[in-house]
Amino acid sequence: MKFSNFFSPTLKNVPAEAEIISHQLMIRSGMIKQSSAGIYSWLPLGLRVLKNIENIVRDEQNKAGAVELLMPTIQSADLWIKSGRYNEYGKEMLRITDRSGREILYGPTNEELITDIFQSYINSYKDLPKNLYHIQWKFRDEVRPRFGVMRGREFLMKDNYSFDLSEQDAIISYNKMFEAYIKTFLRLGLIPISLRAETGPIGGSLSHEFQILAKTGESTLYYDKALEQIDTTNIDTKKLQSYYAAVDDLHDQSKCPIEKNQLKIAKGIEVGHIFYFGTKYSEKLGAFVQNNRGENVPVHMGSYGIGISRLVGAMIEASHDDKGIIWPLNIAPFKISIINLMIDDENCKKVADNFYNQLSSKFEILYDDRDCSIGKKLSDNDLIGIPYQIIIGKRDVKDNLVEFKIRQTNESTKISIDEAINIVLKKLIYK
Amino acid sequence: MKFSNFFSPTLKNVPAEAEIISHQLMIRSGMIKQSSAGIYSWLPLGLRVLKNIENIVRDEQNKAGAVELLMPTIQSADLWIKSGRYNEYGKEMLRITDRSGREILYGPTNEELITDIFQSYINSYKDLPKNLYHIQWKFRDEVRPRFGVMRGREFLMKDNYSFDLSEQDAIISYNKMFEAYIKTFLRLGLIPISLRAETGPIGGSLSHEFQILAKTGESTLYYDKALEQIDTTNIDTKKLQSYYAAVDDLHDQSKCPIEKNQLKIAKGIEVGHIFYFGTKYSEKLGAFVQNNRGENVPVHMGSYGIGISRLVGAMIEASHDDKGIIWPLNIAPFKISIINLMIDDENCKKVADNFYNQLSSKFEILYDDRDCSIGKKLSDNDLIGIPYQIIIGKRDVKDNLVEFKIRQTNESTKISIDEAINIVLKKLIYK
Repeated sequence: MKFSNFFSPTLKNVPAEAEIISHQLMIRSGMIKQSSAGIYSWLPLGLRVLKNIENIVRDEQNKAGAVELLMPTIQSADLWIKSGRYNEYGKEMLRITDRSGREILYGPTNEELITDIFQSYINSYKDLPKNLYHIQWKFRDEVRPRFGVMRGREFLMKDNYSFDLSEQDAIISYNKMFEAYIKTFLRLGLIPISLRAETGPIGGSLSHEFQILAKTGESTLYYDKALEQIDTTNIDTKKLQSYYAAVDDLHDQSKCPIEKNQLKIAKGIEVGHIFYFGTKYSEKLGAFVQNNRGENVPVHMGSYGIGISRLVGAMIEASHDDKGIIWPLNIAPFKISIINLMIDDENCKKVADNFYNQLSSKFEILYDDRDCSIGKKLSDNDLIGIPYQIIIGKRDVKDNLVEFKIRQTNESTKISIDEAINIVLKKLIYK
Repeated sequence: MKFSNFFSPTLKNVPAEAEIISHQLMIRSGMIKQSSAGIYSWLPLGLRVLKNIENIVRDEQNKAGAVELLMPTIQSADLWIKSGRYNEYGKEMLRITDRSGREILYGPTNEELITDIFQSYINSYKDLPKNLYHIQWKFRDEVRPRFGVMRGREFLMKDNYSFDLSEQDAIISYNKMFEAYIKTFLRLGLIPISLRAETGPIGGSLSHEFQILAKTGESTLYYDKALEQIDTTNIDTKKLQSYYAAVDDLHDQSKCPIEKNQLKIAKGIEVGHIFYFGTKYSEKLGAFVQNNRGENVPVHMGSYGIGISRLVGAMIEASHDDKGIIWPLNIAPFKISIINLMIDDENCKKVADNFYNQLSSKFEILYDDRDCSIGKKLSDNDLIGIPYQIIIGKRDVKDNLVEFKIRQTNESTKISIDEAINIVLKKLIYK
């Protein structure tokens, strides 16, 4: 992608309304633009990151055996009246009356709708277990939306729902999702801390939340440091669930069950939450199946959520420096940028074009061919967080050199033009 | 994907509310489930088709130089009040009041929001032309939603917006999109007929609609048969725009400019619409740029829409038989199905497993391992419209044979098990 054809407006100044670093950086780097309180347009750069995260979340769901569908954003109030949550949900639910006077709403979550879909088609234990998910925009009418996409009103969530014959089976499904969540966050380059949690308005008896570590995180976590040392080749769900972890208002040092030298205190951001809530919705919405004795029994359900748009902000909180965002390679909006510092110089242009032509079919490349100052070019590419940068300057090119910069460390080395392609290919392919 | 793990509930009976064939087939094949009037959940099979179409639309937009972003579904009323359309739009706009009493709405289209984004960042002719698109759910509160996803209330649309310095440049952008639309529909296996159209409530002076031919189409088209003979290697926009074409209520035989033997009459379904509307929105919403003489001038805009969820229905109207849907290979939810007619037979299972293991890493395969009757298996695979089907029966397997069925023609041949993989690979790779 040539930067001159792209639409990625970077801003020099920190906007006043942005209180936290991820919000500031997302606006400055041209990832998002607020359209109204808590509602954002995802500009091209932001959308690329959002999609990259979405695809990793999707892939781990598919690998865990969950099946994707897509429920609409607008739901009828009927099912929510049946479940008893229509009144319970309060003002966070965006309630709408359509032209025929029917009560509808913008879905804040989907327990009701998925249970209705399930019960319309499945009525035998032979079709269990089932685990269905979707990735769809939700709306929660927060009284004070803030922190950019971290607490927006319209937000993208992956939510899935498991259906099992018994509590025992449901716990197996629950643990499978627990494992999928750990894998998802690790793949995003994050350190997930899982905490036993309150079930809250969703109901039920078992719940975990997933926080990722970030120095600028919103919560303070107290946890067994073993939680940080996950064996990625063999995730032991039971073991992870057995370690101590609590957010600060639930942590009481005098009752803490682990030794002080085993306890870690760090800041975190909540990015996922999973629930087992038994037959709460299946009973109310008629999701019964026949078991092998011919009896009709309500299915045991769980629900599982990852805030995908929130993760974009959370990942920036977890990985940035004073120059801007530092994206891991698999999430970066572009893997490499080719930065031509002298667009009017024929040699520079030739070298830059050549890199672009050789690499653009293989990787997502940003070719910075903008007519702007050298300083702006360099600082924009750092701000945006492009992992690898090939910087082409007039003097270097004369010496048959280019600069190769690694954003993660901000290390920069001069390499010969002839070797550059091989170095880039090695970096990208062996990562 | 093993059918037993999938969630794809096929129905035997035609639902009473479904008036047209695509709606009937989508419900029977388990592609969609209505959740409320004109609002559908996309079940896994339907979602796969929707995504395949979406990806082709996206790819042709990218090739034409348009840049993707994503605007939210919920918009503030403010910009619509500025443009003058807030009152104009009428009851089709879903109007909402949020918890703080602010007027918001579910976007039926995005001219206002994109113009606001443009004007926030771009103020020089040097940054033109720009063409921005998004693929997002829209809501139009139709008084009588019907025909399934063909006239739903919540629907998926690709809409883009072009920004140019002059009318002349804007027409170039318009024609580029015209060409991209023709290419998109051809790639979907459809025959697009382009017609000069009224601009309607969007305003402006130049507009075309795109209808695709389908025997069961909603409109009757009168057109120069040259429109059907598109040279796909070299799409001549000017020539295509010069041919006569009209929907029936605008066609007057006595005034028809072409010879009778050149005139064709056929049924069509509208799937796209493009508009050039000059400075209507840029003037009202302040989208001005400085030209090369230093003057501030309003940009010339166009907007372009393809109904992606509607296309799913339209494609079924264009391609089905009495057994069900016939998907082209690039749109099919699965390219091949492996149908094991005898799941309890060891030999059948071995052969079927072997096919699945060899093919599933290369293509999207549906492995029909369900515990149901032979008749249901065969008819479901035809109903769903899987292009290639490998049918594994007990007697055939003993003779070292399987049945290879091509859904397009319903031809079926016995082939040796050893050759089957090669035949399938040839079919899929050389298509």
